[in-house]
Amino acid sequence: MCAWREIEGNLATPRGFRAAAIAAGIKKVAGALDLALIFSDARDTAAAGMFTTNRVAAAPVELSRRHLKETRGWARAVVVNSGNANACTGAEGLRTSEESARAAAKLLGISPRQVLVASTGVIGVPLKLDLILDQLPALSRNLSTESADDVARAIRTTDTFSKSCVLRTEAGVRSVCLAGVAKGAGMIHPRMATMLAFITTDAAVAPTVLRDVLCAAVNESFNHITVDGDTSTNDTVLALASGASGVTVRAGAKSASWFAAGLVELCQTLAKLIVKDGEGASKLVAVEVRGAKTAADADRVARAIANSPLVKTALAGSDPNWGRIMCAAGYSGARFDPAKVDILVNDFFLCRAGLDAGFDDTAARRELDQKHLTIRIDLHQGRAFGRIWTCDLTHDYITINASYRT
Amino acid sequence: MCAWREIEGNLATPRGFRAAAIAAGIKKVAGALDLALIFSDARDTAAAGMFTTNRVAAAPVELSRRHLKETRGWARAVVVNSGNANACTGAEGLRTSEESARAAAKLLGISPRQVLVASTGVIGVPLKLDLILDQLPALSRNLSTESADDVARAIRTTDTFSKSCVLRTEAGVRSVCLAGVAKGAGMIHPRMATMLAFITTDAAVAPTVLRDVLCAAVNESFNHITVDGDTSTNDTVLALASGASGVTVRAGAKSASWFAAGLVELCQTLAKLIVKDGEGASKLVAVEVRGAKTAADADRVARAIANSPLVKTALAGSDPNWGRIMCAAGYSGARFDPAKVDILVNDFFLCRAGLDAGFDDTAARRELDQKHLTIRIDLHQGRAFGRIWTCDLTHDYITINASYRT
Repeated sequence: MCAWREIEGNLATPRGFRAAAIAAGIKKVAGALDLALIFSDARDTAAAGMFTTNRVAAAPVELSRRHLKETRGWARAVVVNSGNANACTGAEGLRTSEESARAAAKLLGISPRQVLVASTGVIGVPLKLDLILDQLPALSRNLSTESADDVARAIRTTDTFSKSCVLRTEAGVRSVCLAGVAKGAGMIHPRMATMLAFITTDAAVAPTVLRDVLCAAVNESFNHITVDGDTSTNDTVLALASGASGVTVRAGAKSASWFAAGLVELCQTLAKLIVKDGEGASKLVAVEVRGAKTAADADRVARAIANSPLVKTALAGSDPNWGRIMCAAGYSGARFDPAKVDILVNDFFLCRAGLDAGFDDTAARRELDQKHLTIRIDLHQGRAFGRIWTCDLTHDYITINASYRT
Repeated sequence: MCAWREIEGNLATPRGFRAAAIAAGIKKVAGALDLALIFSDARDTAAAGMFTTNRVAAAPVELSRRHLKETRGWARAVVVNSGNANACTGAEGLRTSEESARAAAKLLGISPRQVLVASTGVIGVPLKLDLILDQLPALSRNLSTESADDVARAIRTTDTFSKSCVLRTEAGVRSVCLAGVAKGAGMIHPRMATMLAFITTDAAVAPTVLRDVLCAAVNESFNHITVDGDTSTNDTVLALASGASGVTVRAGAKSASWFAAGLVELCQTLAKLIVKDGEGASKLVAVEVRGAKTAADADRVARAIANSPLVKTALAGSDPNWGRIMCAAGYSGARFDPAKVDILVNDFFLCRAGLDAGFDDTAARRELDQKHLTIRIDLHQGRAFGRIWTCDLTHDYITINASYRT
């Protein structure tokens, strides 16, 4: 089997899928796409989901969890809206999610339990069911491979661009596709997915296998990004596998690792797009920690650095303030000897063996001025590696979030 | 014994102390005070210190810890500089701290081990020993009760105002004083002290007693504030007890609880001043959580809310976005039922029993526009209470920190 390569396309590029989006009036901006429907024509479409670890879970999270449990991982449709999270909305909010699923199911001729739902937007404001019920008929009529293009746009909130990725590989005489869309751009923190993402594939994958590879892929992608350290109430990653390619992925077989590799690549691409578009972000930053005693230590150091507002504001200002990086590593909880630590931006040494590397300030600033940065920390304590993708913290983050609700 | 009351004064209001500050050229601004000396004339002056939990501890932290251990809690002087943290400066940095202590000791006629040192400012830049050695003679000559006024100013970095507090109480025919100065204003996070503070008292307190009451007071004050979630490399709280009042504080006696109460009051006053002056802060915010199952749960919820950049930016914009507060509580790790939660700003209900309280937006904004706010969360799960003081997150935080080093 060949490697996966990125191609043009949308959620309906994997065979068996159709989708559409519409302006239902949930967002305040008139005419903005805010309701989408993803549908698989294949009767045996497997589904898997990963959801927020937040104790306060939104109604659509509750319902989708329940449906996946009841069907043991078979679903054919996703109803998703932006502009309102339907979180902290009580019994009424749950009913809104249920009625949305029921209405979509009726229009599509499937069971309500085969419909998954997701929402994103402001928390604590009732989501108007009527707006959804009014538009679902038109939405289901519009389902097509072309209009699937609109889904990535319809799930945006403060995102400044749409995030999607499509991968294809050849499997003998057949080809297999993986497609995904995602939205960020705030309340992004690794502890499950911390955003919305929808993934389609025309591989045939049993629900249990799909769940396992999705879990692994999320852990290697969406769980390694952070914008602001806030784990949202609505985090959802859903994957649907139509099987329409005729290629079957079997647990333990070569096909499983090959499919898993594609899914990791897809999820990492989407994850990095989310961070790149973090609220107010001007830079995509990979924090790579090597030479740790254990993988857990490497992870702790990378997360502490990636979450430190002081590091992130220094990155925004291209200030080679490596002391803040060392400081964050120091309170991360990892064990290391500060006197051994090297800190680099890309290949440029800021700190060598715990001390200022005597760098030229202008050269350091030039390095930090780039839009894609890698902050590299070598602890020289062992062989473990960890990486987190993050972004800088700018004035625009404050502007966006000081009056998000209004 | 009477209650403690606030009076005018400085670190030398408690009898036995003198202090002074000078412009040594460590700060970039010419003529800015950046070096201070605190001295006790009493031979038997007890001392206690609490220091950062950061694995990367600055040289002065290392040295002060060592001196307190070697003397078992007897010290008579503190040398403190601002403008340079002397952190991540290796063996050379430690030598700078040692030589500073040695020079001060010689001038004051005491043992170098009786001198404690502290530094604050940029990390990773060598601290010039000469600047300190040049000024110590003049500094020691200037020691007086009046020039002690300057210490609070000399320890400032990005602080916009000086922070000090003096308390007095009557103990029979005698009076006892407690005085303290502190500096913030960034890298403030509870995990020990996360700032500098120096406390003097003329009570006679044995080192072990002083250490215990200081530890308790720090836990109820400096360990309950947060500006940005970053635990610094230089956090230091030092207390000196001259005994010059003739009033002795004994462990287990009434005097111990009375002295402890004064120390808590002093530390809480200083802690709140630090948060009020948090970098870019426009509001002092108390986050109070009641009705938790355990004190640990209350603390988790309060800390998660107080540290959430999304909550803090909403507070900056007076946006009644209570969903973010609920969201932060949800990922705090505490156990509670979201459907029972009440959220108020002061006495104004934003969320009742997990749902929007149907408040008037303009009235909520008016409430949030105040400079001193209390965000109150009742979990209705038990009887435990927790509180953290924090501030809002504004554009100015970014401005200050994007180019702090330069």
